[in-house]
Amino acid sequence: MNKADGMNYAPKGKPNPVVKEGEFVFAAVGLDHGHIFGQCNGLLEAGATLKWVYDPDQAKVDGFIEKFPQAKQAESLEQVLEDEEVKLVAAAAIPSERSALGNKVMRAGKDYFTDKTPFTTIAQLEESKKVVEETGQKYMVYFSERLHVESAIFAGQLINEGAIGKVIQVTGFGPHRLNAPSRPNWFFEKEKYGGILCDIGSHQIEQFLFYTNSKEAEVLHSKIGNYGHPAYPELDDYGDATLKGENGATQFFRVDWFTPDGLSTWGDGRTFIVGTEGTIEIRKYVDLATDKGGNQLYLVNQEGEKHFDLTGKVGFPFFGDLILDCINRTENAMTQRHAFKAAELCLQAQDKALNVTQ
Amino acid sequence: MNKADGMNYAPKGKPNPVVKEGEFVFAAVGLDHGHIFGQCNGLLEAGATLKWVYDPDQAKVDGFIEKFPQAKQAESLEQVLEDEEVKLVAAAAIPSERSALGNKVMRAGKDYFTDKTPFTTIAQLEESKKVVEETGQKYMVYFSERLHVESAIFAGQLINEGAIGKVIQVTGFGPHRLNAPSRPNWFFEKEKYGGILCDIGSHQIEQFLFYTNSKEAEVLHSKIGNYGHPAYPELDDYGDATLKGENGATQFFRVDWFTPDGLSTWGDGRTFIVGTEGTIEIRKYVDLATDKGGNQLYLVNQEGEKHFDLTGKVGFPFFGDLILDCINRTENAMTQRHAFKAAELCLQAQDKALNVTQ
Repeated sequence: MNKADGMNYAPKGKPNPVVKEGEFVFAAVGLDHGHIFGQCNGLLEAGATLKWVYDPDQAKVDGFIEKFPQAKQAESLEQVLEDEEVKLVAAAAIPSERSALGNKVMRAGKDYFTDKTPFTTIAQLEESKKVVEETGQKYMVYFSERLHVESAIFAGQLINEGAIGKVIQVTGFGPHRLNAPSRPNWFFEKEKYGGILCDIGSHQIEQFLFYTNSKEAEVLHSKIGNYGHPAYPELDDYGDATLKGENGATQFFRVDWFTPDGLSTWGDGRTFIVGTEGTIEIRKYVDLATDKGGNQLYLVNQEGEKHFDLTGKVGFPFFGDLILDCINRTENAMTQRHAFKAAELCLQAQDKALNVTQ
Repeated sequence: MNKADGMNYAPKGKPNPVVKEGEFVFAAVGLDHGHIFGQCNGLLEAGATLKWVYDPDQAKVDGFIEKFPQAKQAESLEQVLEDEEVKLVAAAAIPSERSALGNKVMRAGKDYFTDKTPFTTIAQLEESKKVVEETGQKYMVYFSERLHVESAIFAGQLINEGAIGKVIQVTGFGPHRLNAPSRPNWFFEKEKYGGILCDIGSHQIEQFLFYTNSKEAEVLHSKIGNYGHPAYPELDDYGDATLKGENGATQFFRVDWFTPDGLSTWGDGRTFIVGTEGTIEIRKYVDLATDKGGNQLYLVNQEGEKHFDLTGKVGFPFFGDLILDCINRTENAMTQRHAFKAAELCLQAQDKALNVTQ
């Protein structure tokens, strides 16, 4: 596509399932975060077959089977891990337990697909890196704020097609609604959730690495704070960071738990990408004070200002690619290095953060 | 206004002129930057009387008189400074010369109203601080990206009325169109324009201090770069910074010269303000891919998402307040401390900036 076609960029349509029923079997375990539903939906839509569900909490299993009645309840994690038919285990455990669970899964000869954030300490990251090396299995991460957002996927396609030139800066806003009464205790314990930059900040850093095609990056500055939630002293209700990739592109992101009560969705997530020849803005979940819904993308380049309404038009190629990667031992969905680098950087950002409210 | 009235926030209407013809006389000198037209327009609309114009470049004077035929051409700066009728001198000199010019003006017993950025070195700032103290005159600054933007003024009014609770974070984007052939040589010489954070970054820092009501702040991190303009090695075509105010609120801003050719205006300037109970987004000059024009403000708080179209509905109270401040020796338009603090911080941000493209 050459430059003169700038205004003709268009979504390519939703991907089809990549396997037939029974060709790729997975299980769901560790139902602590609701993201497990998104993880399973993505895999199922791409053709995977859900065989087992396991969690020590029967209520969580019941809720899961209500949504996915095809899943059989396993009696133990071991029963899942011993089933040779199972190729991938999807999980959304408490963040501090994700690494240990993944190590078990990989040592049982299966790939692992965890909710973000993948780790809460560098020691966990190092241990799982070792297990990946030893076993040759995958430790893949559900960075939902890109992988499961059609406008975010389309932004990547636009960049690849050269629609905005070379990317020089990415700014991300990741505000979330707290809804404290709905949250489990671990959500407010820093040892378990890892801190805001480690947790929801991991989405942002993954997006930066992806959109700038950076293999290495450096955290230049970061901060955290608790501005409005003294009842939860270990909650960071605010965090931000700025990073530099090895090619000179930089990032700023902020994440917070201050979504206003009156917002029509859980958060006004945005991504702004500045290139040498254009800009992209993604209004991921809402386009304020309109009834457009989410997945609104605004492209500006030499051709003008263009708006794309992308819900239902792009799909989520990650999941089919992941299934094929597991089958073919390729890395088209996401490289292991990329997942681990995003994890490492979010831990570093959290670790070096200035606490601005202390 | 109590919280239940949240959705009833409304602009108060445009201010009226504060003086009659001849009651407050000013002159325009130093026509190097086109902002002088905005400075004069603002003062004239507020009732001031424009008596003189002076610049050594006759072409600039001719262009000025075409727009403001009431201005008489002075033969020298001294002629302006010796006229006791003149109470205020507006100027948009080359940035590195603004301080010296202002010192002359103040020593002649007149107030000074300069285009931003007010200084390019800390030594200039210190010198002009001294002259302000010695003379009791004002060194006021045209931070146009707030003072002359109705949606930005309205944002301040919303914050004062408590529409979003306590402000905890301000993010600003200040992209500008370069249009290099239209720029004078000094624009590309760092000694003269001061660097991007010193120059267009000063707008951003002024807004942060204003919206967070900060009297002191600290530059935590800043960066500059030249990503795409090797022909102008002293041009910073990118800059960003993050600051913390004395009350714990923080800022991130980025400024750049990468406005895409196809944008319908010179820059997609934005301000995002996060409060403990709501958020404000200002789309200052364009609301992408719509025909709404600039001055679109989006307020989200406990009452819902609300859109305000503000062109022609708020006016620019700064100018009338400035005239009255000059007459009454008050500080309602802007305190001297605020103007100097914004100046100091933008110089610090520039000084400590990491060059990410070297």
